[in-house]
Amino acid sequence: MSAEPSSTRRPVAPGAEEILGLYFPVLDHGFVSLVDYMGTDACIERAARVSYGFGTRKTQQTRGLLRYLRRHLHTTPSEMVELKFHCCMPMFVARQWIRHRTASVNEYSGRYSLMPMLFYMPSPEQLQKQASTNRQGRGGDRLDAAGYAEAVRRWNAIREASRDAYEWMTGNEIARELARIDLPLSTYTQWYWKIDMHNLMHFLRLRVDSHAQWEIQEYGRVMAGMFQRVAPISYEAWIDYDVCGMRLSRMELDALRQLIAAGEDSLTARDGSTLDAAALGALGLSKREAAEFVGKLVDTGVPHFDLDLARAKPASYFEERFAAAVPAVDQKA
Amino acid sequence: MSAEPSSTRRPVAPGAEEILGLYFPVLDHGFVSLVDYMGTDACIERAARVSYGFGTRKTQQTRGLLRYLRRHLHTTPSEMVELKFHCCMPMFVARQWIRHRTASVNEYSGRYSLMPMLFYMPSPEQLQKQASTNRQGRGGDRLDAAGYAEAVRRWNAIREASRDAYEWMTGNEIARELARIDLPLSTYTQWYWKIDMHNLMHFLRLRVDSHAQWEIQEYGRVMAGMFQRVAPISYEAWIDYDVCGMRLSRMELDALRQLIAAGEDSLTARDGSTLDAAALGALGLSKREAAEFVGKLVDTGVPHFDLDLARAKPASYFEERFAAAVPAVDQKA
Amino acid sequence: MSAEPSSTRRPVAPGAEEILGLYFPVLDHGFVSLVDYMGTDACIERAARVSYGFGTRKTQQTRGLLRYLRRHLHTTPSEMVELKFHCCMPMFVARQWIRHRTASVNEYSGRYSLMPMLFYMPSPEQLQKQASTNRQGRGGDRLDAAGYAEAVRRWNAIREASRDAYEWMTGNEIARELARIDLPLSTYTQWYWKIDMHNLMHFLRLRVDSHAQWEIQEYGRVMAGMFQRVAPISYEAWIDYDVCGMRLSRMELDALRQLIAAGEDSLTARDGSTLDAAALGALGLSKREAAEFVGKLVDTGVPHFDLDLARAKPASYFEERFAAAVPAVDQKA
Amino acid sequence: MSAEPSSTRRPVAPGAEEILGLYFPVLDHGFVSLVDYMGTDACIERAARVSYGFGTRKTQQTRGLLRYLRRHLHTTPSEMVELKFHCCMPMFVARQWIRHRTASVNEYSGRYSLMPMLFYMPSPEQLQKQASTNRQGRGGDRLDAAGYAEAVRRWNAIREASRDAYEWMTGNEIARELARIDLPLSTYTQWYWKIDMHNLMHFLRLRVDSHAQWEIQEYGRVMAGMFQRVAPISYEAWIDYDVCGMRLSRMELDALRQLIAAGEDSLTARDGSTLDAAALGALGLSKREAAEFVGKLVDTGVPHFDLDLARAKPASYFEERFAAAVPAVDQKA
Repeated sequence: MSAEPSSTRRPVAPGAEEILGLYFPVLDHGFVSLVDYMGTDACIERAARVSYGFGTRKTQQTRGLLRYLRRHLHTTPSEMVELKFHCCMPMFVARQWIRHRTASVNEYSGRYSLMPMLFYMPSPEQLQKQASTNRQGRGGDRLDAAGYAEAVRRWNAIREASRDAYEWMTGNEIARELARIDLPLSTYTQWYWKIDMHNLMHFLRLRVDSHAQWEIQEYGRVMAGMFQRVAPISYEAWIDYDVCGMRLSRMELDALRQLIAAGEDSLTARDGSTLDAAALGALGLSKREAAEFVGKLVDTGVPHFDLDLARAKPASYFEERFAAAVPAVDQKA
Repeated sequence: MSAEPSSTRRPVAPGAEEILGLYFPVLDHGFVSLVDYMGTDACIERAARVSYGFGTRKTQQTRGLLRYLRRHLHTTPSEMVELKFHCCMPMFVARQWIRHRTASVNEYSGRYSLMPMLFYMPSPEQLQKQASTNRQGRGGDRLDAAGYAEAVRRWNAIREASRDAYEWMTGNEIARELARIDLPLSTYTQWYWKIDMHNLMHFLRLRVDSHAQWEIQEYGRVMAGMFQRVAPISYEAWIDYDVCGMRLSRMELDALRQLIAAGEDSLTARDGSTLDAAALGALGLSKREAAEFVGKLVDTGVPHFDLDLARAKPASYFEERFAAAVPAVDQKA
Repeated sequence: MSAEPSSTRRPVAPGAEEILGLYFPVLDHGFVSLVDYMGTDACIERAARVSYGFGTRKTQQTRGLLRYLRRHLHTTPSEMVELKFHCCMPMFVARQWIRHRTASVNEYSGRYSLMPMLFYMPSPEQLQKQASTNRQGRGGDRLDAAGYAEAVRRWNAIREASRDAYEWMTGNEIARELARIDLPLSTYTQWYWKIDMHNLMHFLRLRVDSHAQWEIQEYGRVMAGMFQRVAPISYEAWIDYDVCGMRLSRMELDALRQLIAAGEDSLTARDGSTLDAAALGALGLSKREAAEFVGKLVDTGVPHFDLDLARAKPASYFEERFAAAVPAVDQKA
Repeated sequence: MSAEPSSTRRPVAPGAEEILGLYFPVLDHGFVSLVDYMGTDACIERAARVSYGFGTRKTQQTRGLLRYLRRHLHTTPSEMVELKFHCCMPMFVARQWIRHRTASVNEYSGRYSLMPMLFYMPSPEQLQKQASTNRQGRGGDRLDAAGYAEAVRRWNAIREASRDAYEWMTGNEIARELARIDLPLSTYTQWYWKIDMHNLMHFLRLRVDSHAQWEIQEYGRVMAGMFQRVAPISYEAWIDYDVCGMRLSRMELDALRQLIAAGEDSLTARDGSTLDAAALGALGLSKREAAEFVGKLVDTGVPHFDLDLARAKPASYFEERFAAAVPAVDQKA
């Protein structure tokens, strides 16, 4: 981004200005950079109140309103802030990411341009077995060293063959849109991605969740740190009401009502009340739901997504790496 | 709608077929009619499993999957069902309704066509004072009979003047787009409105809520009854997880953890545990949030939105009433 | 907006900075103000190329690319620019405007707040008769002075009755959501409205078109001038390819092919070729389409939407007028 | 789909019923099936008129209205028809397809399920060199037989290595979300895809265009044939105004005005008028634009997208092929 600061009459988020255009590494070759933003916490309040110009509200009043809006799902004012990212990720991550339809996207085109030969290699820590409970993810149980070595050997063989074929085909002027069809899903792509803060919060809540694929979580965590710098009050409300909040069903609330007495401004445990599996079932909770309910009462702590500025790189760092990874046969003008 | 049934190879929802094209009155001149639909509960399961053709799944298995999807916010399969309504409502209701941007809409055009002179008149029960707690709605406190009579007198005077002006202007061939600018917001308009079931559930949850304006709630309740007939299993899940469910914040969950001990498959009240106003505040709940939290533990019962088929009218009933209410000066071809 | 400029590392549009937060009057009480923006012409190019950081492209190269993208409907890069407006308009205009579903909106709430008693009064020039050709608009034929006076008399009577009723009802603490239901559609409302440039261009093309209601055209023209200041190269392309461009049908192109011979890099009229009504009909053009086709060959000139900065007001100008027009009975905190 | 027809009171499109649930092969392993639809041409007219129930309009009147709407971009009524497809395509095609954000999608999950080992192999006709003019596609110039054989040899080697690795990894219980990361982009995936007719027309116009990648064109052509059977009048209008229509710029129209004289209901070539490269440039057309303009006057004929019912398969045909291609190590319940 511009090394030279300019003058503007637009609202400015000082925390965001500090990181604007810095590239934060993710996985082995990927990155996320906040390249532009519009609006701040104060702009959300102003839109919610449909007020004229900048006021002189105290931060404390803004915080109260923004938390009220978030709690009661008055989400339209949070659409008034916009963030634009430059991101680079393996294609299997890109395919999950693009399912969020409320963003604007411009992706690097493999039909038009030559692809850099960069592929994602999972670390030994991440090469885990299929989870038995979360049936779509990994379960924490790592492969042994020999197994990991074998996986790496196979991946490298595939990638070498893919790269050779890609270079041979593009070297023989085969249409790029065909030369790329046997690149593996681990190949890195990149895009510009713009989204409003309301939809970003939805995206991030799903993507920093432990049920998301670990690789996309890594992107979510960095982007959550960027969101925090654009709109810190909104970020705090998002942590309290979304990330660390839970949805309780009618049956779960009925269970709570049997365990807790609500006073005028107090809550008291009903002495001796207990709900065993049978009682939870009688309330309409399936066995699976009962287990989920119990799990909601386990405190898993509050996540922190602060950015580590020491890890940030200039744009040129990645630009050079990617240029070097493009097959040498030919360069588009 | 077609009096004559046809043959189709599409999935059919028997409950919806019974009411298709019937017009259900809402408020004094309005209506809602389900005029078309696509898909059923079974179609949601099929999309979620990306399976081929119609299977032979048992309803019980479908129910388990659909409730799991709803509970875990896997919402895309519920976009696979679509409903189309013909609706008629006062313009102030239409203005709230149209804020939901995920529907397709075709509204009656006051630029092109003459408007029927039909206006919404609130009943004595509904003419209430501003609520003190819910600062945007009515508070339950009714006006006395004299006050109501005075309100009605004023409304009738305004409407008579509006109607006279509209008839005078359209009678003098003033452009309809201008002749209508002083019609009151209580004037009825109508539209075709199509939406997928996922977005319908979101719309309905907000609109059957007690914080919505009562007049739009009336529409929501009838449409919820129609939704129930298209996809009864999804409807039940929506009641259990959305309408009668609640979102709890990080601080509220922390409070629960102090009041309840979670066992392996059971929950037990912690004897002697109580959280007074100070304790709730110490957990980070503002005074307002603490009151909202206590309120969540009050059982407000399960709403029922079954349609009363005895109230249904044929399309012609409303068609004739509306044709009769159009100024006689001139009729578009 | 902020009187004090700040420092930013974001891309800056100098033309937009000059007008940021200025309020431009529209109609008798309305306004539009550009209150924030994100991105410039250069950002569109950068997104289209998925390039790193700010480059050193010449404006001429940017222009060529942006015009190419516009011409070939590669519209996603133009989503990368965002504009935020504060607007005030009569409700009948707001109802047309809100049909564009791709924007974010926060409207002043008549349920929560008291409405200012400001109503739109058409000028004598605008009080025209229904068009005979464009069946939904006005036709240019003005009412005579007596007719206009009578229309004004009727409008004033309705507005006086509406205002009296509104003040009486809110003075008697009737819920605001009901007190407002007989305000006329000419009552002014206001909102914050945010949209990306791609969707703004679509909105503006429809709304500066002569078939749109004249009152909303007035808003479109001011907003087109604001767009021009954010992204002047995109604006020029929009004028050339959208506003002053036309869509030709298969049949119309077939007609052109009979009238014009295409050389390698030249076009030549085919001597003696003529297509009369019968010939156009034989090509598949209905009588109406043939007339539309002939109309497309009439040069209607290039519109200019430059803003007149001398008309701009500070936010406080409208803030004070609106505060003064709110009934005095009671003010929300 | 259901072998057994049911009774419905919904509008029925007879042409669509004939093909409902039939699977049409595309490429070497892919398919498209229309699995459900809502609405017909008559429903679009009814929504546009906001009329009650089924009328007795003649098809000719419906056609006139629908073509008028299409010509003048009154697109909202065409959102009232909905189509649902079951599609199977290589992932590089899926990645282009998913960029259309206005559809609902449920894709087969490689995190949850085992992927079938089916890969797209381009035919000798399709293995062409990069185009020099259309810089993102193939140019028609085929590889020689030896070149094709070499490409196939390389593709087969990559696929064999990918399949072996996938089977080895899933056989060793490595998380499926990781086992799949080196599958090539030519691997087939599948999804349910639902879209309204307005957005389908936009999608199809771009995807049957010669600038789209040939492989996705193949899907577009089959889906255009399905659209034709749901709404034949709309389809015809789409061909005439979109597929075979063109957008002309301000400068191109200015050129036409120099070559053609518009009479009251006729068009006549201006004898002796010619515009050479210099004259076109003087009108503001760049060299590239001038060439594009000349190209618009070349008649490329009217495409036909009629489905060949003889090629249709039952769902079970593909279901069995895909089940057989899933690695045998383990099957999800």
